[in-house]
Amino acid sequence: MQNHFGLEIEALKNKLLQMGGQAEAAARKAIDALVRRDDRAAREVISGDSTLDRMEMEVDEMAVQLIAKAPLATNLRLIIVALKISHDLERVGDEATTIARRAVDLSLEPQIKLSIDLPRMAARALAMLADSLDAFVQRDCEKARSVIAQDKEVDRLNKGNNLELAKFMAVDPPAIPRALNLIVVSKCLERIADHAKNVAEEVVFLHEGCDIRHFAGRTTPDL
Amino acid sequence: MQNHFGLEIEALKNKLLQMGGQAEAAARKAIDALVRRDDRAAREVISGDSTLDRMEMEVDEMAVQLIAKAPLATNLRLIIVALKISHDLERVGDEATTIARRAVDLSLEPQIKLSIDLPRMAARALAMLADSLDAFVQRDCEKARSVIAQDKEVDRLNKGNNLELAKFMAVDPPAIPRALNLIVVSKCLERIADHAKNVAEEVVFLHEGCDIRHFAGRTTPDL
Repeated sequence: MQNHFGLEIEALKNKLLQMGGQAEAAARKAIDALVRRDDRAAREVISGDSTLDRMEMEVDEMAVQLIAKAPLATNLRLIIVALKISHDLERVGDEATTIARRAVDLSLEPQIKLSIDLPRMAARALAMLADSLDAFVQRDCEKARSVIAQDKEVDRLNKGNNLELAKFMAVDPPAIPRALNLIVVSKCLERIADHAKNVAEEVVFLHEGCDIRHFAGRTTPDL
Repeated sequence: MQNHFGLEIEALKNKLLQMGGQAEAAARKAIDALVRRDDRAAREVISGDSTLDRMEMEVDEMAVQLIAKAPLATNLRLIIVALKISHDLERVGDEATTIARRAVDLSLEPQIKLSIDLPRMAARALAMLADSLDAFVQRDCEKARSVIAQDKEVDRLNKGNNLELAKFMAVDPPAIPRALNLIVVSKCLERIADHAKNVAEEVVFLHEGCDIRHFAGRTTPDL
């Protein structure tokens, strides 16, 4: 029984990793579509979002089944954490969809030249997401804490982009709608990093038993 | 034992209602602060956000305790739904905080006159939130479904605001940073309505046993 239970817990973890891979791929493809002005790839991201929605429901269902027979408090906590992580991954998919929708809009308009570096910001946010899932698999709280620490840097990149885009809009009013699309994309990337931070906080909660959400990084001076 | 368990379930529900009241009050106060340019009230919202953060952790803890002794599948489902609802309410608090931060920024700048009606949009989103919590307490799936149906109207209001603000920025470039703050506020209100919709979907899931998330409203023509 315990052995069978162990296998089901493994299946739950694998499902989460699959979800993580899917969410990451969607976000990456959405940003690529934006940069390459590839409206077909963007539409594929939008129509593919239902896969992540379905996976979240599957995780919920697995969790309900597992909770009913969970023998130990540790397993219970793992199951609750799995529910939360799957919700975060589903939300990463929503952000990818929003980026893809903006990519479709932008692919129909003349290109704008800007000094903001969205691909670099995207790489940063996606690396945080991949690291948070690695930390989950490897039970690596150190790695989880390093993800949490990086969130502020992405917040700063987002703020910098907003200032840059506001300046740009002032000198080129006809480009305002296009610049607003890029503000939304930058915000989506910032939210993907937030979700990665949430996953990392859940990993620390799972293994160290303390709830560090809402407290992480409060000792750093610039809060 | 069952009786004691029943009392604990009631306590969990009451905690959620308290959270709901707190989240609603924070959002209302943030919008009031924005409209009245009251930077002190806005700062109170920002510093008060930790209350909702703490309440979410308390709900998690109650849920973990309860799951360990839940005798019936129905209770299990209620507990899982409670975890999800508390997360949504905590996020409403985050949106209120974002609105309050923008209210602080805007209170330091000259006022801008616009035709967009943020207080009406806020009233709409907050009514959805209150109704979704009523539906939870009264086990009223009809009411929950009506909340879900209203979400698109708030999405439309947000899109309308964005168009209006983009036009405004084009004719008054120095006001761009202020208008961007209002775009963020409008988006926050749209997200509060999203969270209310999530809560309503959980209520339907709880009582009708079917998962309508990601499918609600897909039969309406404008999706």
